[in-house]
Amino acid sequence: MNNKEFRLDLDRLQRLGMVEAVWGEHKSFEQISEILRKLESSSQLALITRVTFEKASDLLNRFKNAEYHSAAACLTLGVPLIQDSSLGEVLIVSGGTSDVRVAAEAELALRMHGIKTELILDIGVAGLQRLLGSLERFANAKVVIVCAGMEGSLPTVVAGLIPQPVIGVPVSVGYGVSEKGKAALYGMLASCSPGLSVVNIDNGYGAAMAALRIIKS
Amino acid sequence: MNNKEFRLDLDRLQRLGMVEAVWGEHKSFEQISEILRKLESSSQLALITRVTFEKASDLLNRFKNAEYHSAAACLTLGVPLIQDSSLGEVLIVSGGTSDVRVAAEAELALRMHGIKTELILDIGVAGLQRLLGSLERFANAKVVIVCAGMEGSLPTVVAGLIPQPVIGVPVSVGYGVSEKGKAALYGMLASCSPGLSVVNIDNGYGAAMAALRIIKS
Amino acid sequence: MNNKEFRLDLDRLQRLGMVEAVWGEHKSFEQISEILRKLESSSQLALITRVTFEKASDLLNRFKNAEYHSAAACLTLGVPLIQDSSLGEVLIVSGGTSDVRVAAEAELALRMHGIKTELILDIGVAGLQRLLGSLERFANAKVVIVCAGMEGSLPTVVAGLIPQPVIGVPVSVGYGVSEKGKAALYGMLASCSPGLSVVNIDNGYGAAMAALRIIKS
Amino acid sequence: MNNKEFRLDLDRLQRLGMVEAVWGEHKSFEQISEILRKLESSSQLALITRVTFEKASDLLNRFKNAEYHSAAACLTLGVPLIQDSSLGEVLIVSGGTSDVRVAAEAELALRMHGIKTELILDIGVAGLQRLLGSLERFANAKVVIVCAGMEGSLPTVVAGLIPQPVIGVPVSVGYGVSEKGKAALYGMLASCSPGLSVVNIDNGYGAAMAALRIIKS
Amino acid sequence: MNNKEFRLDLDRLQRLGMVEAVWGEHKSFEQISEILRKLESSSQLALITRVTFEKASDLLNRFKNAEYHSAAACLTLGVPLIQDSSLGEVLIVSGGTSDVRVAAEAELALRMHGIKTELILDIGVAGLQRLLGSLERFANAKVVIVCAGMEGSLPTVVAGLIPQPVIGVPVSVGYGVSEKGKAALYGMLASCSPGLSVVNIDNGYGAAMAALRIIKS
Amino acid sequence: MNNKEFRLDLDRLQRLGMVEAVWGEHKSFEQISEILRKLESSSQLALITRVTFEKASDLLNRFKNAEYHSAAACLTLGVPLIQDSSLGEVLIVSGGTSDVRVAAEAELALRMHGIKTELILDIGVAGLQRLLGSLERFANAKVVIVCAGMEGSLPTVVAGLIPQPVIGVPVSVGYGVSEKGKAALYGMLASCSPGLSVVNIDNGYGAAMAALRIIKS
Amino acid sequence: MNNKEFRLDLDRLQRLGMVEAVWGEHKSFEQISEILRKLESSSQLALITRVTFEKASDLLNRFKNAEYHSAAACLTLGVPLIQDSSLGEVLIVSGGTSDVRVAAEAELALRMHGIKTELILDIGVAGLQRLLGSLERFANAKVVIVCAGMEGSLPTVVAGLIPQPVIGVPVSVGYGVSEKGKAALYGMLASCSPGLSVVNIDNGYGAAMAALRIIKS
Amino acid sequence: MNNKEFRLDLDRLQRLGMVEAVWGEHKSFEQISEILRKLESSSQLALITRVTFEKASDLLNRFKNAEYHSAAACLTLGVPLIQDSSLGEVLIVSGGTSDVRVAAEAELALRMHGIKTELILDIGVAGLQRLLGSLERFANAKVVIVCAGMEGSLPTVVAGLIPQPVIGVPVSVGYGVSEKGKAALYGMLASCSPGLSVVNIDNGYGAAMAALRIIKS
Repeated sequence: MNNKEFRLDLDRLQRLGMVEAVWGEHKSFEQISEILRKLESSSQLALITRVTFEKASDLLNRFKNAEYHSAAACLTLGVPLIQDSSLGEVLIVSGGTSDVRVAAEAELALRMHGIKTELILDIGVAGLQRLLGSLERFANAKVVIVCAGMEGSLPTVVAGLIPQPVIGVPVSVGYGVSEKGKAALYGMLASCSPGLSVVNIDNGYGAAMAALRIIKS
Repeated sequence: MNNKEFRLDLDRLQRLGMVEAVWGEHKSFEQISEILRKLESSSQLALITRVTFEKASDLLNRFKNAEYHSAAACLTLGVPLIQDSSLGEVLIVSGGTSDVRVAAEAELALRMHGIKTELILDIGVAGLQRLLGSLERFANAKVVIVCAGMEGSLPTVVAGLIPQPVIGVPVSVGYGVSEKGKAALYGMLASCSPGLSVVNIDNGYGAAMAALRIIKS
Repeated sequence: MNNKEFRLDLDRLQRLGMVEAVWGEHKSFEQISEILRKLESSSQLALITRVTFEKASDLLNRFKNAEYHSAAACLTLGVPLIQDSSLGEVLIVSGGTSDVRVAAEAELALRMHGIKTELILDIGVAGLQRLLGSLERFANAKVVIVCAGMEGSLPTVVAGLIPQPVIGVPVSVGYGVSEKGKAALYGMLASCSPGLSVVNIDNGYGAAMAALRIIKS
Repeated sequence: MNNKEFRLDLDRLQRLGMVEAVWGEHKSFEQISEILRKLESSSQLALITRVTFEKASDLLNRFKNAEYHSAAACLTLGVPLIQDSSLGEVLIVSGGTSDVRVAAEAELALRMHGIKTELILDIGVAGLQRLLGSLERFANAKVVIVCAGMEGSLPTVVAGLIPQPVIGVPVSVGYGVSEKGKAALYGMLASCSPGLSVVNIDNGYGAAMAALRIIKS
Repeated sequence: MNNKEFRLDLDRLQRLGMVEAVWGEHKSFEQISEILRKLESSSQLALITRVTFEKASDLLNRFKNAEYHSAAACLTLGVPLIQDSSLGEVLIVSGGTSDVRVAAEAELALRMHGIKTELILDIGVAGLQRLLGSLERFANAKVVIVCAGMEGSLPTVVAGLIPQPVIGVPVSVGYGVSEKGKAALYGMLASCSPGLSVVNIDNGYGAAMAALRIIKS
Repeated sequence: MNNKEFRLDLDRLQRLGMVEAVWGEHKSFEQISEILRKLESSSQLALITRVTFEKASDLLNRFKNAEYHSAAACLTLGVPLIQDSSLGEVLIVSGGTSDVRVAAEAELALRMHGIKTELILDIGVAGLQRLLGSLERFANAKVVIVCAGMEGSLPTVVAGLIPQPVIGVPVSVGYGVSEKGKAALYGMLASCSPGLSVVNIDNGYGAAMAALRIIKS
Repeated sequence: MNNKEFRLDLDRLQRLGMVEAVWGEHKSFEQISEILRKLESSSQLALITRVTFEKASDLLNRFKNAEYHSAAACLTLGVPLIQDSSLGEVLIVSGGTSDVRVAAEAELALRMHGIKTELILDIGVAGLQRLLGSLERFANAKVVIVCAGMEGSLPTVVAGLIPQPVIGVPVSVGYGVSEKGKAALYGMLASCSPGLSVVNIDNGYGAAMAALRIIKS
Repeated sequence: MNNKEFRLDLDRLQRLGMVEAVWGEHKSFEQISEILRKLESSSQLALITRVTFEKASDLLNRFKNAEYHSAAACLTLGVPLIQDSSLGEVLIVSGGTSDVRVAAEAELALRMHGIKTELILDIGVAGLQRLLGSLERFANAKVVIVCAGMEGSLPTVVAGLIPQPVIGVPVSVGYGVSEKGKAALYGMLASCSPGLSVVNIDNGYGAAMAALRIIKS
C-alpha cells in the first residue's frame, strides 16, 4: 500500500479542549502501537477505549506511560489533567450491574480531563425506592449521565425529577428485543421527560465528552 | 365469488367465556352489517372495535340494539352482562391523554363481560409524584392494565411497585422513534420488572380479555 | 472506581412476593459471587438465570447452598419455598425439543416459589393431533405458559381452545426469518386469539413471574 | 420524453401459459388505457389487478370487452378460457373476513385460465373447530391456497394436516406488529410445517399463478 | 368513562424550571381546550406543539391569551418570561429550508423561557463554504442546536469545529432511506465527532429543553 | 424436570407422505440420540439437517444405520425409498458455489423420498450466458428449485423463462445488505415473474418438501 | 423568527458544474417562490423536483421563465444548456411502466445540462427477450442508468452484460416486501454483478448527476 | 451429489474487461483450490477477496503463482496488467484507520487491472482541517472512492467540494447504531450532495470495478 500515512487530529486539544481518543476495538495491536508512538513523541495524552485485557498487556509492555483500567476496558497514555473541582461535578448512575463497563468508561474519560465525578450503581426503576433514596446525592451534580440497558427507563425517570442536564447512555445488555441496546436507545429518545439528550449505545466516552462540553460552557 | 359464507365463531362464549368481538377497521359497512345481522338473529352480544363515527352512524340506523361508544370508538350489540363485583376489579391506567381511546376500549370490553373497572388517566412517569400519589388506589385491583405510548416506561414502574398481575398495552402515539408504538412495545417487553406481560400495540380489547381470563381463573 | 456499591433490591420478596433473581449471562464470575455473598449473608433465596455449566461449576465450589439446574441453565441459592398446591397448578407446554431450556427455566422459577407445575413438550401445531390428544391435561391448570419458536403459532391455537390465562414465550430457535425469535414474538403479539399475553423472547423467568402474579391474585 | 414505447410481453401466454396481467395500482388511467388498447388490438386476454372502483368505471366506459370484479378489485379484458375440470381444482381458504379481496383476486386469476376453484372463508385458527369441520372439503383439491393476516398461522396448521401443495398468502390486515402483513409473512416463512411455500404479502395473483404452474405441471 | 380526570403536572415549573408543554398532534380540540382552561385558571404559561392552523384558529377564538406561531406550528398561552441575556445565547442552525419548522419550534420554546436565541438557516454540508463563512457567529453561543434531515451530517461537522455543547435534531425530511428521519438520526448517533448528543426526530422542543437545562446549570 | 416426554410425530409418513425430519442445529448430541433411538426402534426413516461433522461422527458411532452427507451437512437414518422415475424429476439449480450446502440438502431430502433429481451449479445471472446455455436441461424437470444468495435474482429470471413450478430458496451468503439472506428473500418475494413461490432462507429441506407435495399431487 | 435568511448555494455551477436543484416535495409554494425569485434575479438555471401539478400551476403563473414537465413532475427555470453530443450519450432504461416518473426525472436533469439522452421503457427481466432484443442500443451509451422497482434485478442483469458504467435507481413501486423500494435497493446493493453503483430510492436526479460527473470526467 | 460442475465465467475479461474475482469468505479451502486450478489451467488472472491469513497460507503452498496481500486480505493469481497511466488515476480516501482493509481491497483490485491509484487515510470530518488540507491532491484524480464507517459523512462532504465521480463505500466499523455499517450506508444514500453513488457495505472490490467502468468509458 503506497502513500499510506496515519493522520492524527493533533490539535484536537486546542480546538475542542479534548485529549486524543482512539476507538480500540477494531484496531490491531500494530495499528494502536503506531498511534501511541506518534502521540507519545508529541507528548500528548490519549484514551484508547474498548481494549481487551490481552491486547492491553502487550501494549503496556511497550509503552511505559500507559495504564490499563480493567473496569472500563480502556488504556490511557500520560498523566490525567489535574482535577479542577471548581468546574463542578458529573454524577454517573447506572441501572444495573451489567452496565458497569460503560459507566466506568464515562468516569475515566472525565477524570482524564480533570473533571470530578461520582458514581452510583444499581438503582434501576424496578425497585424505585433505591432511586428515591439516593436523590439527595443528585443535588450537587452539574451534569448527570445515566447508563441503562433493558427498557432504558431510568434516564426518563431521573430527567422528570431534576432540572440539571441529563445525558442518557443506552447499554447493550439484555436479550430478545433488548439485545444490543436498541430498546433502551429508542426508549430514551422517545422519552416523555423534556430535555433528555442521548448518545450512541454503549458510548460512555461520548456521554463524557458531552458532559465536558457542558461543564466548560 | 361462489361458495362464500361467513362463519362466525358462535360458540366462543361457551368455550372461552367471551362475547363475540369483531375488528371493525378493515371491514366495510356491508361486511359489518352482515355479521351483526347473524349475531342479532342468534341473540348474541357483540363488540365491534375501531369503528369510525361515520360508519357507526349508519349502523345505528339499521341495528336498534346497537350502541356507539365514541371515546372507545367501539360499537356494541345487546345488553352487557350484569356486573359481578365479587369477581374483583380491573384498574386501567394510562400515561397520557392521548392514550384515552385504547384505555376506553379496554374498559368497555370488560364492562360488556360484567367486570367492574376503574380508570386513572395521565399519570406518566415524567411527573412521578402523580403515580406515587395514586398508589393507594391500586391496592383494590385484582388486575392492572397499563396503557402507555412514547417510551412506555409506566408499566415497568408500576410492575416494580405492586404484586398483582400487570398487563402492558403499548399505544401508537408519538413521533420519530416512538411512531406507531414500537418503542413502547419494545420497552415493555424488555422491562426490568419481573412478570409484566404485554399485548399488541393499541390492543385494549386484547388486554381486557387477558384480564378477563385472569379474573375468571 | 470510587463510590461503587452494588444495591440489591432486598425487599423484593416483601413488596412483590418474589425471590431475588439475577440475570447471569452478562455478569462475570466475580460479579455473581459478590451478589451471592450478599444474599447468603441476609439468608435470601435467589435464582441466577442463564449461567453456563463452566461458570456454575466455579460458583458451586464457593457456595455450598447453591445448586445448578442444567436443563434450565440456572443456579439457585437456598431451599425452595414449600409447595402450596392449593394455589393451583401452572402448566408449561412447548412446541419443540429445542424450546426445552426456556420451558425448564419457567418451571424452576415457579418451583422456587412453591408453585406446582406440569410440563408437556413437543406438541407443535405441525402435528395437531398431539395437541388435541393432550387437551384434557389442560383442564386442571390455573395458568398455561406456552413456549414456541419458529412461527410461534402454538399459543394462538391453545388460547383459542381454553378459557384460562395463556402466556406466550417466544423462543429464539430457528433460522432465516425466525432467527432470534422475532417471527415467533410477532406471531404471538399479532395473535387472532383474544387475551393471549406475551413476554420477551426466551424469557421463561418472566412468564413464570407473570403466572405467579396471577396465581396469587 | 423521446423514444418512449410501452413494450408488452405479448408472448407470455405462449411461453408461460399465462394471460397478460398488469398491476394497476400505481398506474394512471391513461397508462392502463394505452395498455388495454394494445392488448385489445392483438385480441389478448388481460387481468388488471388492484383497480379502484372509480378508475374501473372510467375504463369500462372506454373498453366494452372489459369487466370489473369488485370483490377482487380487478378488471378483466376478454372472455376467460373455458374451464377444464380435468386439470383439477384449486381450493382457496382464508382466515378472516378481511382477507376476502386477496382470496377473490386469486380465485379470479385462476378462473381466467379455465381452472376450477372453490372458496372457504373465515376458518381462522382461533376457532379451530371451523377448520376441522371443513377438512373433508380439502380432499378434492389439487392445490390449496391459504390467505391469512394477523399472525398468519392458518397455512401452518393446514400444511400439517394435508399432503397436497399449500401456498400461503400473507394478508396486510392487522395493526401494531401485524400491520402491513409482516408478522403473517414471517410466520408463514418460519412455519414448522414442511413444504409450505409463500408469496408476497397480498399477492393473490401470484399465488394463483404458482397454483397454475403446479396444476399444469 | 367513569373516574376520568386529566392530571396536569402543575409543579413542573418549580421542579424543572420548565413551563407546561403539551404535544398537540394527537389531541382533539376538546382535549386541548380542557387543558388550556385548567392552565389558564391557574395562571400558567403553556406551549402546545404541533398544532395545525385550523385547530389553532378555533382555539384562538376561545382563549384570548393564546397566540399562534405558524412557522413553528405552535400555540402559546400567556406572556413569555422576560429575556435574561446574562444566561447566554442559544444558536439554532439548520441544514436546509425544509427543516425550518423544527428549528422554529426550538427557538420559540427557548424564548418562552426568556432565553436569547439566534437562527441560521440553510448551511448544509453539500456547500461547505456556507458553514465555514458563518463560523464566527458560533463563537458567542453558549449552546448550539443543529437541525438536519437527509443524511444529517451537519451536526457532526459542527461538533468537530467548536468546543461548546452541540445538540443534534434529526428532521423527517427526505425520501427513500432518509424518509422519516431515520438516516439522519442514525448518522448523528454514530457521529465520529466526540460529545454530540441527540434528541428524537423532529423534537425541536426537546432540544430546546436540553439547551435550557445546560444554560441554567 | 418432571413429566418430560419427547413426542415424535410418528404418523407423518402416513398423513403427509414425508419421512421424519429433525432440525439438528440447536439440538444436543443427547437430544438427537434419543430421537434416533425412538425412530430406529419403530423402524422409521429419518433426516437430520444441519449437523456438524463433529456431532455426526459421534452419532455414526452409535447408530449403525445412520449415514452422514457432508456436502448437505445432514445425517440420514435408514435406506432411502426406491427411486420412482415415473413421478418426474426435480431440477435443483444454484447461483454460486457458496450455495452448495443448501442445494445439496434439497437434493438429499428428495432422494430420501425416492424422487429423481438433477443439479446444476454456478449459473448466476451476472453471466447470463451460463443460464441461457443450460436452458434445454430445464425442459425435463417437473419442478425447479432455485437457490440463490446475494441479490437473489436467479429465480426471477428462471420463472420468466419456463412454465413449470419454480421454488426459490434464498441463501444466507453475502455481506452488508445481503448478509443473512434478507436481500435475497425480499428479492424473491418481490419478484416481477408471476408464480414464483418462496421458502425460508437456507431452507433446502422445505423447498424439497414443497416439490414433493407438487410431484405427488 | 429573527435573522432568517435563505442561503442558496449560488456557486454550485462553477464548483461542481451543476445547475441549482431544489427538492420541491416538502417545500411550500411560498418557500419555492422565494427561491425562484432569488435564482431568477441572479439569472440562474434551476430544476425543482417532485412538484405536484397544482403547485406547479401556481408557480407558472408567477414565473414566466418556468416550465413544468408533467412526466417527470419537475419544474425548470431558464433555458437548458445547449446539447453537446461530443460528451457522449446517457441511456436510461426502466423495468416497468410504473418507473416512468423516476426515469423521466433523470432524463430531464441531464438535458438541463446539455447531455444527450435515450430512453427505453418496459424491459423488465420477467420477459428477458425484451432486454436481449434491445442490447444493440446499449452499445452507444457512455453511461447507463437503470430504474427498477419490485425485486430490482434489471441493473444486475444489465451490468453483467455490458462494460460501461451502470447506475441503479431503485423505484418505490410495489407492495408487501417491495413497498417503498427497499427490496429493490437491497437487491441492487447486493448485486452479484461487479461495479454496479446505486443511488437512493426514486432518486432519478441523483443518478443523472452521477452520470454527469462521469461524462465530464 | 451427481452432475456437479463449477462453471466459471471465463469470458468475463472479454465481455466486461474485468479479471475473474471470487468472494472467498464463505468458500472452503477445497472450493477455492478447485477454482484456482481451473483458472490457472486457462492462464487467467484472478482476485480472491476476504481470505484469512490461515486459508491463504495453505493456498500459497499449492499455487506458486498466487500472492497474498494482508492489508487487503486478498489473494491474487497471476501477474497484474501493466499500469496504463494514460487512463487516469483513481484516488482512494478513508475516514479512519479502521477502514484500511476495505480501502486496500479497492486499491489492489484496481492495480490488478493496470489502473494507477493513490491512497489517503484518516481524513475524517471530525477534524475537517485534515480534509481541507489535502484537497489539492484530489485535483488529479479521474475518480474518487471514499470509504467511511460510523456516520459515513465523508463522501457527502467530498462530493460537495469536487466535480469528479465520487463512489462511497460504507464500512462496517462502529458499534451501536453504526454496527455493521448500516448508518454509514444510509447516510451515503441519503446524501444531500448531488451525484454521489454508493456500493454495498465493505465492498471495496465493487467500488473499484465501478471506478474501472468509469475510467474505461
